[in-house]
Amino acid sequence: MAELDTSVQALLQGKNFAFISTVNADGSPHVAPTWVDIDGNYVLINTGLGTVKQTNLKRDPRVTIAITEQTNPYNLVIIRGYVVEQTTGPKATAQLDRLAKKYMGLEEFPDRQLASRQATLKIKPERVFTRKT
Amino acid sequence: MAELDTSVQALLQGKNFAFISTVNADGSPHVAPTWVDIDGNYVLINTGLGTVKQTNLKRDPRVTIAITEQTNPYNLVIIRGYVVEQTTGPKATAQLDRLAKKYMGLEEFPDRQLASRQATLKIKPERVFTRKT
Repeated sequence: MAELDTSVQALLQGKNFAFISTVNADGSPHVAPTWVDIDGNYVLINTGLGTVKQTNLKRDPRVTIAITEQTNPYNLVIIRGYVVEQTTGPKATAQLDRLAKKYMGLEEFPDRQLASRQATLKIKPERVFTRKT
Repeated sequence: MAELDTSVQALLQGKNFAFISTVNADGSPHVAPTWVDIDGNYVLINTGLGTVKQTNLKRDPRVTIAITEQTNPYNLVIIRGYVVEQTTGPKATAQLDRLAKKYMGLEEFPDRQLASRQATLKIKPERVFTRKT
């Protein structure tokens, strides 16, 4: 496992977006922006059940994520790793609510029906690349 | 070929970053942010010869790109397509210089040695997804 150093942790804890790439069933690439957080040395993503990324990562847990700082797009971290756990149910809802707090300043995610059908993807970093200019 | 409508064109012509995803030789996903431009209905990316994305796209031209607006990260376009042409030499250098003008406000890209070893990737859009909130 690659260590996330403090500057990488700060980028992931900030109100920045992660562009998460996965591979589709036909072998083509997929990418989408998403909220992101960390739990110790793991990267946490929250996604709807049945989304392309959630389905792709059930089939193939390998993932690469690019994060840039919202106020300086040349401050970049790219993390390669794989999903070690997909959690659903109330724990995934609670994690989405923490993300709603961080990104929207709300106590909970407004759409409770959506919030009940989410998955938390726990990603173990294998390689970390950083560039700051 | 999917049409790039005027709002998509505006996002691609603005000072926004494209997160370009490709598939590595081992079948794992790759993603990196990059400058972007358009030529009519084609998406243009400029990249160094021998970079991961350039090498991946020579092997498998399928590509997906996610672009968000720098000032509103919830304004999103995702484009699926494939590289129909890789151009190198003076034309690729001139295209990098146009990107340097757009993103850096400079007449040409400062590192001329780097600028001489670039490729322009011409991407034909097959599917376009937009979301604006």
